[in-house]
Amino acid sequence: MSAACSPAVRTLADPDTPFAVVDVDRTRRNIARLRARADRLGVTLRPHVKTAKSLDAAALLHDGGTGPVTVSTLAEAEAFADAGYTDITYAVGIEPAKLPRVIALSRRGVTLRVLLDSSEQAAFVAAAAREAGTALPALIEIDCDGHRGGLRPDAPGLTRIGGLLHDAGCLDGVLTHAGESYSRPTAEGRRRAARDERDAAVAAAERLRAAGLPATTVSVGSTPTAHAAEDLTGVTELRAGNYVFFDLVMAGLGVCDRTDLALSVVVTVIGHRPEFGWIITDGGWMAMSRDRGTAAQAQDQGYGLVTDLAGTPIPHLVMTDASQEHGTLTARDGAPLPDLPIGTRLRVLPNHACATAAQHHGYHVVDGSRAATAPAPAIEAYWPRITGW
Amino acid sequence: MSAACSPAVRTLADPDTPFAVVDVDRTRRNIARLRARADRLGVTLRPHVKTAKSLDAAALLHDGGTGPVTVSTLAEAEAFADAGYTDITYAVGIEPAKLPRVIALSRRGVTLRVLLDSSEQAAFVAAAAREAGTALPALIEIDCDGHRGGLRPDAPGLTRIGGLLHDAGCLDGVLTHAGESYSRPTAEGRRRAARDERDAAVAAAERLRAAGLPATTVSVGSTPTAHAAEDLTGVTELRAGNYVFFDLVMAGLGVCDRTDLALSVVVTVIGHRPEFGWIITDGGWMAMSRDRGTAAQAQDQGYGLVTDLAGTPIPHLVMTDASQEHGTLTARDGAPLPDLPIGTRLRVLPNHACATAAQHHGYHVVDGSRAATAPAPAIEAYWPRITGW
Repeated sequence: MSAACSPAVRTLADPDTPFAVVDVDRTRRNIARLRARADRLGVTLRPHVKTAKSLDAAALLHDGGTGPVTVSTLAEAEAFADAGYTDITYAVGIEPAKLPRVIALSRRGVTLRVLLDSSEQAAFVAAAAREAGTALPALIEIDCDGHRGGLRPDAPGLTRIGGLLHDAGCLDGVLTHAGESYSRPTAEGRRRAARDERDAAVAAAERLRAAGLPATTVSVGSTPTAHAAEDLTGVTELRAGNYVFFDLVMAGLGVCDRTDLALSVVVTVIGHRPEFGWIITDGGWMAMSRDRGTAAQAQDQGYGLVTDLAGTPIPHLVMTDASQEHGTLTARDGAPLPDLPIGTRLRVLPNHACATAAQHHGYHVVDGSRAATAPAPAIEAYWPRITGW
Repeated sequence: MSAACSPAVRTLADPDTPFAVVDVDRTRRNIARLRARADRLGVTLRPHVKTAKSLDAAALLHDGGTGPVTVSTLAEAEAFADAGYTDITYAVGIEPAKLPRVIALSRRGVTLRVLLDSSEQAAFVAAAAREAGTALPALIEIDCDGHRGGLRPDAPGLTRIGGLLHDAGCLDGVLTHAGESYSRPTAEGRRRAARDERDAAVAAAERLRAAGLPATTVSVGSTPTAHAAEDLTGVTELRAGNYVFFDLVMAGLGVCDRTDLALSVVVTVIGHRPEFGWIITDGGWMAMSRDRGTAAQAQDQGYGLVTDLAGTPIPHLVMTDASQEHGTLTARDGAPLPDLPIGTRLRVLPNHACATAAQHHGYHVVDGSRAATAPAPAIEAYWPRITGW
């Protein structure tokens, strides 16, 4: 690693490339935008911290407080618990071998909700709660769009699972995720996905209640539906993660503008192949990830769009290919290749913020709202990432 | 992280999933196979350590010694230097900001060869060597197949670059990489790629020598061409990296057999969607990477092929989709979905070992040649990875 936190590292011209950069001004704006929506919709916002995986970024979510969060790994749950967070939902289906770490968190006073969609899981969670003598609140995963896991709201097993959990004091409610909304390129399509998501969660909660079972939490969310929902009657909380940074996939859908993208990767020009129309950089897939999420969209953005070091887009310049530690930039639409000598630093906006962020140990933080310093934006902070499982 | 090195972690049934596993027996066999080829071909083998990024794995390359290696980052160069390696080639084009770390390694007594393909780079490397008063040996990158960087062997600039380097005592030789060999699905195609790679490197070296310049090192290599080359006359060294672990892309090309694949990821079943033919696991793209290298091959292997915990293939079972922390397994060819209850551990063989390994902090090591222990293969060691840049 380059000298990430050294006091000598002052601007984006200093750390050795490639490295990840977060614009904290854009991050704050993205966070404020969804918080205002959640307030208007009358639901609690439970951000998913899987994108940034950063306690520093999370401190912006709740005005420095330790509000409700969603996590994708027990490593995240443990790191957030260590930082004082006590209201955490682990939104990946639980399996028996992970229960000891769940129980350990519960014994530390953390309300850690687990997720499940089968009687087998309900039975072992209930048994573990009884044996441990501790609360293990569980959410039943509901499938609203055939995307991944979960029970359909009308599935025969729903009330049986609810009953197994309730008998052990574990039933907390239901959770759904409109994963298919990432492939809805119109605002109306996403509004419909948000209605379907809400309807599925509320219908499942109503079925549990009709069977005399509690359904306190009714949790929905994905970044596209969170930004499209018009009415969340019956829903108690909204989850989203990607909205904190956004990315080219979200911009391609129209959920955000390219000027909202808070994450980028700084790379350096290391070669030229004018005969092929290529500029070669030191940022390959190790720095960007192999994610090619825009390949399925109307406008394929390759491995990312290129800006200068201050964040100003360089028109038509796209990262079109990647080796492990090499990126290839080409000019689109017949535009001439810009003159970028060896040593020039650039920023690449990624397809998928969650995947690109995961390739880095942390973020150098700049504030895009501040006047640019010479020779490059000033580094305000370094935010380490939580890694592993 | 799960308790990676705890003495209580005894078999693949113990660490929390997902995690990466290396079969040391297969790794040893893969290493011995290419070493025997290099010996027959009469060239030095300079393995590329970018795949495993592990000092423990590297110790198998040279019978525990610290022989020549190739690296993809200065972080690898520094870690290998710390471990006593003194003959290192940094095979990514050099740019000015990285020179201080190169010079620091040189001053520690490491012969660190840098790579370049332009007069600009030759000029700043020569100037840095003069100013530092230290040797900065450089290789001129030669393009043998239009894959990425490099000069064609007949490029007018070759001897000018050579002269600039030689005047500062920096010219060591030439290096080429047959990157296009990864898309040659026949043995004859790869043999031709190996001839082209050799011919390009040797022709460039001869041009330098004809101009009165030294070309001591003539370096070629890629895993497909290293395993295809029949005659390396004029070449001094062979580089390859992926061959240590291999992967489904290499098996799809026919460079190895599936039983040679040394890297896999252990995942756990967390759900079932029989109505869609899906088994859901806790191993998503965060554990496998987004690499879909077999998508361009005759047989698309999705995100990977599935085996049981002992490594025995489960016929027809493929990881066909991935979210961040969810994998979807489906049965191919109309085969019935196997009965794999929640909590079942499986191994997934990856498309691209370099990319999948990069998603993990290290490897739990098993020895596939030893009789299986109950309930799962014994963990012999934990090999940490070198990360960052």
